[in-house]
Amino acid sequence: MHYAIVVANFNQEITEGLLHGALKAFKEARVPASRIKIVRVPGAWEIPLAAHLLARTKKYAAIVTVGAVVKGATTHDYWINHAIFPALQEVAEEYMIPVTLGIITCNTWKQAEARSRNNHDNRGYCAAKAALNMAELFEKT
Amino acid sequence: MHYAIVVANFNQEITEGLLHGALKAFKEARVPASRIKIVRVPGAWEIPLAAHLLARTKKYAAIVTVGAVVKGATTHDYWINHAIFPALQEVAEEYMIPVTLGIITCNTWKQAEARSRNNHDNRGYCAAKAALNMAELFEKT
Amino acid sequence: MHYAIVVANFNQEITEGLLHGALKAFKEARVPASRIKIVRVPGAWEIPLAAHLLARTKKYAAIVTVGAVVKGATTHDYWINHAIFPALQEVAEEYMIPVTLGIITCNTWKQAEARSRNNHDNRGYCAAKAALNMAELFEKT
Amino acid sequence: MHYAIVVANFNQEITEGLLHGALKAFKEARVPASRIKIVRVPGAWEIPLAAHLLARTKKYAAIVTVGAVVKGATTHDYWINHAIFPALQEVAEEYMIPVTLGIITCNTWKQAEARSRNNHDNRGYCAAKAALNMAELFEKT
Amino acid sequence: MHYAIVVANFNQEITEGLLHGALKAFKEARVPASRIKIVRVPGAWEIPLAAHLLARTKKYAAIVTVGAVVKGATTHDYWINHAIFPALQEVAEEYMIPVTLGIITCNTWKQAEARSRNNHDNRGYCAAKAALNMAELFEKT
Repeated sequence: MHYAIVVANFNQEITEGLLHGALKAFKEARVPASRIKIVRVPGAWEIPLAAHLLARTKKYAAIVTVGAVVKGATTHDYWINHAIFPALQEVAEEYMIPVTLGIITCNTWKQAEARSRNNHDNRGYCAAKAALNMAELFEKT
Repeated sequence: MHYAIVVANFNQEITEGLLHGALKAFKEARVPASRIKIVRVPGAWEIPLAAHLLARTKKYAAIVTVGAVVKGATTHDYWINHAIFPALQEVAEEYMIPVTLGIITCNTWKQAEARSRNNHDNRGYCAAKAALNMAELFEKT
Repeated sequence: MHYAIVVANFNQEITEGLLHGALKAFKEARVPASRIKIVRVPGAWEIPLAAHLLARTKKYAAIVTVGAVVKGATTHDYWINHAIFPALQEVAEEYMIPVTLGIITCNTWKQAEARSRNNHDNRGYCAAKAALNMAELFEKT
Repeated sequence: MHYAIVVANFNQEITEGLLHGALKAFKEARVPASRIKIVRVPGAWEIPLAAHLLARTKKYAAIVTVGAVVKGATTHDYWINHAIFPALQEVAEEYMIPVTLGIITCNTWKQAEARSRNNHDNRGYCAAKAALNMAELFEKT
Repeated sequence: MHYAIVVANFNQEITEGLLHGALKAFKEARVPASRIKIVRVPGAWEIPLAAHLLARTKKYAAIVTVGAVVKGATTHDYWINHAIFPALQEVAEEYMIPVTLGIITCNTWKQAEARSRNNHDNRGYCAAKAALNMAELFEKT
C-alpha cells in the first residue's frame, strides 16, 4: 500500500517536526519510504486541494495532512481553519479515502512546539498512525 | 434489521462507556448482537468516513456514532467538531439513513464521565434509542 | 395543498407547545387536519433527515420544523445547531420546497417557554404562517 | 436586463428602507421599474430559497437580497445567519448569477436604522449597485 | 501559463496595495503582464463567484483573490467571511485549480495597512507566490 503526506511549508520549523513524526510512524509500520509520496504546499489553505489531487489518483491507501495554524493578531487563522477542515472531510467522502489530521491549530507557538516534538504526542505521528489504522479498516471492509 | 455502531478509540475510557450504553439499548430492544456491526476508528475525525463506508452498503437500518471530544488547550476539538457534525448530516442525507449522535462534546473530563455512565443519561444509550426510533419511522414511511 | 410538520420529541413540554402553535396557524388558514402530516423524531438532530424524507415525496407544499435546543453544560447544543440549520436549507434547496423554522435555540428554559406559549409569538405558529406564505408564493411563481 | 429583489418582511420598518435604497440605485442606473421583480418572503431564513426560485428562471442578470437580522435574546439570529449566507453563495455558484447582500446583521436596532436610511450608506442601495456592477462584469466576460 | 487576480474594490486603499503586492510577485517570477487577467468586483462577497467564472474558463493556472474585510460595528464582516472562505475552497475543488488567499480579515484598519504595504509581508504578494508554487505543483503532478 502507498501513502501520501501533504505538508504545508508555512511555519516550517513546526511542520518539519510533524512530518518527521509522520515518517516515524510509517517507518515503525515498515512502510518503505518508496511507498510514501510527500507533497509540499505553501500553507494550510492549500492542503485540501493537494489532498484532492492525490485522492483522485486512487493510488494511496490514505493521506496524512501536516500543517500548523497558529493564532495571530488577526482572524486569518480562524477563517483558514473554518474552510479547510470541512474541505478535508469532503475530499475523504468524495473519494472514500482516509484523510487524517496532522494539522495543529494552536493559540501559541509553545503549543505548536509541544505537539511537533520527537515523541508519541507528535501530531504528525498520531495522524500517520490513524492513516495506517484506517487503511487497515478499509482493507477489511 | 441490522444496525452499525462507529466507535472512536480516542478517550477510550469514555467511549467504551458510551458503546456499552448503545449496546444496552439495542439489547433492551431485543436486537441480537449478531445484527450489530461495530467499527472502530482512531478518533472522532474518522467517524464520518466510517459511517459513509457503512451507509453505502445499504445493509443497516441506522448507524450510531460514538465518540468523545473533550476541550483541550488548543482549538483542535473545536475544529474537529466544526467539520464532523455537518459531515455526519451529509452521510445521513446522501444515503437516507439515520445517523444518530453518541458523540459527546465536553468542556471537562467530568462532564464526559457523567454522560458515559451506566444509566439512561448515557449518550450512547440515547443515540441507540434514537437509531431504533428512526429505523421504525423509516420502516413506516 | 398538504403540509408536513416534523416535531422533535426532546424537550417535549416545549415542542408540544410549538406544535400546537403550528396547528393553530394551519387551522386559522382553514387547512384541514387531514392535510397535515405530523412526523415525530427523537431530537433536533434528526429533523433534517425526516424533512428530507418528506420533501422527496413531493406531496407537501411546505414543511414546518418544530424543535427546542436549549443551551446545556456542554457544547452539544451548539454543534447540533451548527449542523442542522445548514442541512435544513439544503433540503429546501434540493427539493425546492419551503422548510420553515419552528426550532428555537434558547439560552434558558424560560426563553423556551416564552416562545412556545399559546399566543402569536409562538414560534411554531410563526413557522406555520411562514410555510403558508411560502406555499402561496410558490403557487404564484 | 432584468433584476430581482428578494425582501424579507420581518423587521419591515427596516427592510422597507433597504428596499427603497435598492430601488433608488436601480433608478439612478435607469433600470425601468418594469424590469425589476420584487419577491417578498416572511423572513431572512426564506431568502435563499426565493433567490433559488428566481435564479433558476435564468431571467435575471442579478438578484439583490434584502433583510434585517437583529440580535435578540436567544441565538436565533446567529443560526439563521449561519445557514443563509453560505446558502446564498451556493445559489450564486449553482446558477452563475450574482446574488448581492442587502441583508444586514445588526447588534442593535439603532444600527439597523442607520443602515436603512435614505442615503448612500443604505445597504440596499449598496447591494443594488453591486448587482449592477456584477451584471456588467458578467456581460463583458 | 496565465494567471487571474480577483480584486474587491471595497476598502480600495488596502486592496490596491494587496494588488500591487500580487503583481510584484508575478513580475519577480517573470510572468508577463499580458498573461495576468485582473477582474474587479464590488466587495469580498462577490469574490467567489468571480473566481468561479474565471475557473470554469480553464484558462488560468491559478487564481489569486484580493480583498480586505475589516471588522466593523456589526457582524457583517463575520458573516461574509463565514460564507466566502468555504466557497473559495469549493471553487478550487470543483475545477481543480489553486485559488490562493490575498483576502485579509482584520480587526483594525492599522492591521490592514500593515498587511498591504510594499514589502514581503504584503498578503497579496504572498498569495501570488502561493499561486505560482501551486501552479508548479500542478504542472509536475
